[in-house]
Amino acid sequence: MEQRQSERQGRSRSRRKTGEAGPVATPYIHLRNPFVPQEAYSADEIAAIHEGALRVLEELGIRVLLDEARALYRAGGALVDETSQMVRIGREMVSAALATAPRSIRLRAANPEREQDYTLGSMLFMAGAGCPNAFDKERGRRPGDLKSYLETLRLQQSFDVIHMHGPSVEPQDVAIHLRHYEMMRGQLENCDKPLFAYARGRQQVEESFELIRLARGLDEAAFADGVWATTVINSNSPRQLDLPMSRGIIDFARHGQMSIITPFCLAGAMAPITVSGALMLQHAEALAGITLAQLAKAGAPVSYGGFLSNVDMKSGSPAFGTPEHIRACIGSGQLARYIGLPWRSATGAASNTADAQAATETVMALWGAVLGGATVTVHSAGWLEGGLTLGYEKFILDIEALQTVAELVRKDPADEAALGFDAIKEVQPGGHFFSTAHTMERYQTAFYQPLVADLSNHGSWTEAGALRADERATAIWKQKLADFVPPASSEGVADRIADFIEQRSAAGGAKPED
Amino acid sequence: MEQRQSERQGRSRSRRKTGEAGPVATPYIHLRNPFVPQEAYSADEIAAIHEGALRVLEELGIRVLLDEARALYRAGGALVDETSQMVRIGREMVSAALATAPRSIRLRAANPEREQDYTLGSMLFMAGAGCPNAFDKERGRRPGDLKSYLETLRLQQSFDVIHMHGPSVEPQDVAIHLRHYEMMRGQLENCDKPLFAYARGRQQVEESFELIRLARGLDEAAFADGVWATTVINSNSPRQLDLPMSRGIIDFARHGQMSIITPFCLAGAMAPITVSGALMLQHAEALAGITLAQLAKAGAPVSYGGFLSNVDMKSGSPAFGTPEHIRACIGSGQLARYIGLPWRSATGAASNTADAQAATETVMALWGAVLGGATVTVHSAGWLEGGLTLGYEKFILDIEALQTVAELVRKDPADEAALGFDAIKEVQPGGHFFSTAHTMERYQTAFYQPLVADLSNHGSWTEAGALRADERATAIWKQKLADFVPPASSEGVADRIADFIEQRSAAGGAKPED
Repeated sequence: MEQRQSERQGRSRSRRKTGEAGPVATPYIHLRNPFVPQEAYSADEIAAIHEGALRVLEELGIRVLLDEARALYRAGGALVDETSQMVRIGREMVSAALATAPRSIRLRAANPEREQDYTLGSMLFMAGAGCPNAFDKERGRRPGDLKSYLETLRLQQSFDVIHMHGPSVEPQDVAIHLRHYEMMRGQLENCDKPLFAYARGRQQVEESFELIRLARGLDEAAFADGVWATTVINSNSPRQLDLPMSRGIIDFARHGQMSIITPFCLAGAMAPITVSGALMLQHAEALAGITLAQLAKAGAPVSYGGFLSNVDMKSGSPAFGTPEHIRACIGSGQLARYIGLPWRSATGAASNTADAQAATETVMALWGAVLGGATVTVHSAGWLEGGLTLGYEKFILDIEALQTVAELVRKDPADEAALGFDAIKEVQPGGHFFSTAHTMERYQTAFYQPLVADLSNHGSWTEAGALRADERATAIWKQKLADFVPPASSEGVADRIADFIEQRSAAGGAKPED
Repeated sequence: MEQRQSERQGRSRSRRKTGEAGPVATPYIHLRNPFVPQEAYSADEIAAIHEGALRVLEELGIRVLLDEARALYRAGGALVDETSQMVRIGREMVSAALATAPRSIRLRAANPEREQDYTLGSMLFMAGAGCPNAFDKERGRRPGDLKSYLETLRLQQSFDVIHMHGPSVEPQDVAIHLRHYEMMRGQLENCDKPLFAYARGRQQVEESFELIRLARGLDEAAFADGVWATTVINSNSPRQLDLPMSRGIIDFARHGQMSIITPFCLAGAMAPITVSGALMLQHAEALAGITLAQLAKAGAPVSYGGFLSNVDMKSGSPAFGTPEHIRACIGSGQLARYIGLPWRSATGAASNTADAQAATETVMALWGAVLGGATVTVHSAGWLEGGLTLGYEKFILDIEALQTVAELVRKDPADEAALGFDAIKEVQPGGHFFSTAHTMERYQTAFYQPLVADLSNHGSWTEAGALRADERATAIWKQKLADFVPPASSEGVADRIADFIEQRSAAGGAKPED
């Protein structure tokens, strides 16, 4: 794997060198996970969890609210009770689905350099998503609006370590039947990374796809050649798939776009209180969704998903970065590798502010996802209040953590030149290396340059106002937004999509499906 | 290893059950590292770093300021230049030392249940050590004094996840020739875990050992049976061993007490700017110290040590939790396993306050140490300003992170009962698991109980004063100090050591050695 990494590095480096002057920063665009995936359960236990999940699907089944989805399951051989809407899925159906689900998925992007191979071993990060509120230290906490949505999209675009776009903030000031137009317009005009589309009903989904085709100048064939849009499907744990979610699986599959099937199982609430039991339920629900996608279209791009943590038994709120969350990340990774599919994990923070608790929660969960070998880690930057708020300062602080992990992908040289025996010979006992040739040749690029961390001593820090990291982060996101320039690929996009949005809006837009 | 873990768990559990009522907390006293050690360098590269370190010792040598130490090296076959005080050490001397250095070391303690096996695979934590200042939100930042030293010792004693005592705060209000008496008195009267003694001159060391013998009622033989005191030896990188450090190695070795040989190599300052080069220098200096210990007494308990990070090229200050720090932890672990010795790592924080930066730095470094398979991780709780200040609130926040990692040692059950198929069967689609028998049987002990994390929602948190984690931590350390009761083993200790300290003080105490 190190070999593969250094090749990638080589490619990325030279690519960037041509485009950039000055010291070459470590490229964060294409990352391979450098760590050996860890194990929370034995191979036998993972097999038992998988077996138990198959039993859940066969003997207990899952409630599917969409007629069309139940029909697909029935046609595929499932036992369906139309009265209870319960669908019991045989293991042979699951095996067939796992046989046709692709192991590696090409994520397309307006900027070819930002395309990704979505597969086990890749390490991708997505910002905090789906937050109903936004917070920054200048404007305070507020309901999510289009302005905050666009600003946080631009922040996503501004950092290479964010690899896929997500709906960071919900623009609640846009009517729900028109919202998907503005959410797609925002991404298409400001971003050049793989895109996100909500599964909120067939018309919204198909209009979102059409907007991508118009903006990127793709015909049906080109659009179907790789994944241009990804969505996250949350089952209503336990054992239920609602209308928009099941419709979304079908629609994304038929158009060759990617569904990330993610049961949101909170151990002790919507799932068994044991991590292993919650994993079994998560696994059953994910397999049911993956099976539906493959029934809708064999070979459809689909991702295994796990977002499993525990509830706080005092408050009933979801907890993040806990031992249970980390254990669940590692166990989910084992289950994903057991079925051979790429998978999505998530960090998170329950803290109400960007303090030491928030940082500890997110960094702990980040390591859980990294050591679980997650293909993509969602909510990696900006989440507060368990996802109820996207914090601008938290976003910047989390980028520092993501860049720290991303730096570890780089292979540190240990050849004779790097080891620097001559430099050690040159420096007298008790001396220093500041002025050696070995240091001079390397000091500009030797170390990671902190984004927000302040390493000045207590005196200088006090003179500078004794600002906490979250207070310093404000100036950074403001500067990033001030400096923001839409990517080259955005040129002409506004014109290419304006008429379509205008016509569809005039025609009444598209209501989300309940 | 999981097997070994669960056995240990079993033992610790039952031990605690007998002593405790109510739900059994996960015991944090005996921890085995549950993770597969990671690798930053290939096997060939590690061999090359080791080989390079041997070349440094053979061809360049290390400057040793103590005559007695140079004499030991010379007697062992080293080439010594008395004019330059340079000692060149042959690889056969290093091999001989590595052959006699023990792989597993029993750390003795007043409380037998708190004794530890210091060996590869054990996971021990030590609080922040050697801080010249102390800080808490009530009394602010102040020069370290005896009161702060004693308070932070009691905090160390109050949390099981701290396994070895350390000199958290330097009591600068005690005269240097009497300070070791008070530092030992503080530990002996308040603590029952493995103890720390500074190597600040022969008389101080021997008086510290005598105080332990008096307090614990040990004769010479009992004191030599296992390690009752540990010290940290820092070489003056690059390639220099000063008087107290080299004397300390000799004295601790001859008394069968443990030296942790820890070059403090900051890449780009006292070491080459490359992590691999800094590791080569660290390795050379550590091997020189380990060799001296074995020359002083074959079989002496000694630990490999690594505390390698990088300097911030802007401020020249040490950086912590950086990619370079994490990489160095993992590389140091590879070198320690290469020579087969237990090893010490360290976390740290450069931040000037207990904010998100401080938490990110410490948790990142903590994972570096855990994934490097460190036997003990020093500075795990309370470090601020790169060690210039011990923060009480930071201490509490870090304990939360340590307990989170410690929980992962526990093997999560995944048997039929744990998986809870019947609970899943019992709960209707879309329902919840709160009231299932499966939940009721487990809810008291299922999840880690946060120490300082607040999981309440934004409304309740705001009503409660919108306190940051560091603000909430104040009440926790205050409560711990208010509740503090000296361990049973402290009974009678004051009387057993009072006369000795009085006599030695009257006789002029013991000046530290320059």
